[in-house]
Amino acid sequence: MNVHLQPVIRLPRTSVAKGACAAGDRLLPEETPIALTYDGSTHAVMMASPADLEDFALGFSLSEGIVAGPDDLLSTEIVQHELGFEIRMWLSETCRGAYRTRRRAMAGPVGCGLCGLESLEEAVRPAPRVSGTLQLTPSAVATAMADLSEAQRLNREVRAIHAAGLWRPRQGLVAIREDVGRHNALDKLAGALARAHETCRSSMVLLTSRVSVEMVQKAARMSAPILAAISVPTALAVRVAESSGITLVAVARGESFEVFTHPERVQGL
Amino acid sequence: MNVHLQPVIRLPRTSVAKGACAAGDRLLPEETPIALTYDGSTHAVMMASPADLEDFALGFSLSEGIVAGPDDLLSTEIVQHELGFEIRMWLSETCRGAYRTRRRAMAGPVGCGLCGLESLEEAVRPAPRVSGTLQLTPSAVATAMADLSEAQRLNREVRAIHAAGLWRPRQGLVAIREDVGRHNALDKLAGALARAHETCRSSMVLLTSRVSVEMVQKAARMSAPILAAISVPTALAVRVAESSGITLVAVARGESFEVFTHPERVQGL
Repeated sequence: MNVHLQPVIRLPRTSVAKGACAAGDRLLPEETPIALTYDGSTHAVMMASPADLEDFALGFSLSEGIVAGPDDLLSTEIVQHELGFEIRMWLSETCRGAYRTRRRAMAGPVGCGLCGLESLEEAVRPAPRVSGTLQLTPSAVATAMADLSEAQRLNREVRAIHAAGLWRPRQGLVAIREDVGRHNALDKLAGALARAHETCRSSMVLLTSRVSVEMVQKAARMSAPILAAISVPTALAVRVAESSGITLVAVARGESFEVFTHPERVQGL
Repeated sequence: MNVHLQPVIRLPRTSVAKGACAAGDRLLPEETPIALTYDGSTHAVMMASPADLEDFALGFSLSEGIVAGPDDLLSTEIVQHELGFEIRMWLSETCRGAYRTRRRAMAGPVGCGLCGLESLEEAVRPAPRVSGTLQLTPSAVATAMADLSEAQRLNREVRAIHAAGLWRPRQGLVAIREDVGRHNALDKLAGALARAHETCRSSMVLLTSRVSVEMVQKAARMSAPILAAISVPTALAVRVAESSGITLVAVARGESFEVFTHPERVQGL
């Protein structure tokens, strides 16, 4: 089973409607195992769209708190295997020590790993506090979501690929990344922005998906003051957005949306 | 931030539509960190709906290939912490050795963990081959999906919670589990069925979500010959369904659906 290099692929299928069946095909999102390794050892294997892997490398490393910026990755090599891709990253001296300590704590031998309580604390580490003073009109939120939808190149035919974008007043959509997984799309966006030395402080992060707590944690690490999504947040995502100072906009469709936290960044609220 | 015990919770929000705003509230899915520990060490922390945790314990253990059946968990204790839940499981003598060996290989000290290629091989382990001879009419597929939709108790008001169900001809919907995460919903279903000593061999697994490769791998481990979902599969999910002998039905809405693999289990195809 060779690795496929396109994020979208056409496969045959039989469609059945009202008892009648017809042979045909459909565009589907590809999904590829990506092993992320640091200093020669695997940290995680993620299932992702095979695209923008350099952005993914840096964005994932930032989201996981392994690096603080692009200079902390001494090198990033993308290696194609039969089963998927390997992203080989080598950490700067600054990050190497902290990563080894963390890895030893997380991956000890049986019986010495983290106990359940320690793991819960590790999983719900407080997100950074965001302080941007960006303020938007309600119509700017609608415009931004329309801009995101317009720019979803991969999704246009497939309708099953998520996107994450960064939007600024006057500039519009600064960047967009698409992936079969919503977490990957946001990681790829974070990586692309960091590689281009773009800041998110006066910007809004846009998502085509639901908002789980990890999406809020990622946005907080990006220092984005507003996070807007097409679908609903989880209750935990709302609590973490509240405590990290993020304005959480969701159910954003057409001219209407809902604001769950810090409404002061939307004019008129 | 205390752990919440209900899978659905009502939170305040401001809705904005056509420039006018209104205070109100909305039902949201809860999302809770769940630490899964074996023999005292954490295997993973999953974000899940705080419900059916005994089913989740066994289903997750089965999906991960850590146990082969309910008797391999000597005990399962659910402990509530401030930040989430801990599921403390103790493995039978039969499973303990294999688990220790696997854990040592996966979680070695820095520099001795799996390299990228080994991790890819671990991630795409071949799924078991499924051989059930179940055959369904097209209208049975439509009936099953309608039965699943009807039984989504949590989702009725929230519209953001996934479900996985098991359906059999003549019996209809045998079981359903709901979760904010689609993988968790399927794991909880697998656990509930195994605890009730129900087999999936002549049954169809139903999903409200997209079908990523891991959903096919889980269905194969359940020995379910047909997997049907509301949304689309990934291309990798199609390839793995093909090689494991599973009939993959997707885009199942109303009276219409599409069959991507092994159509011989749908009458008339």
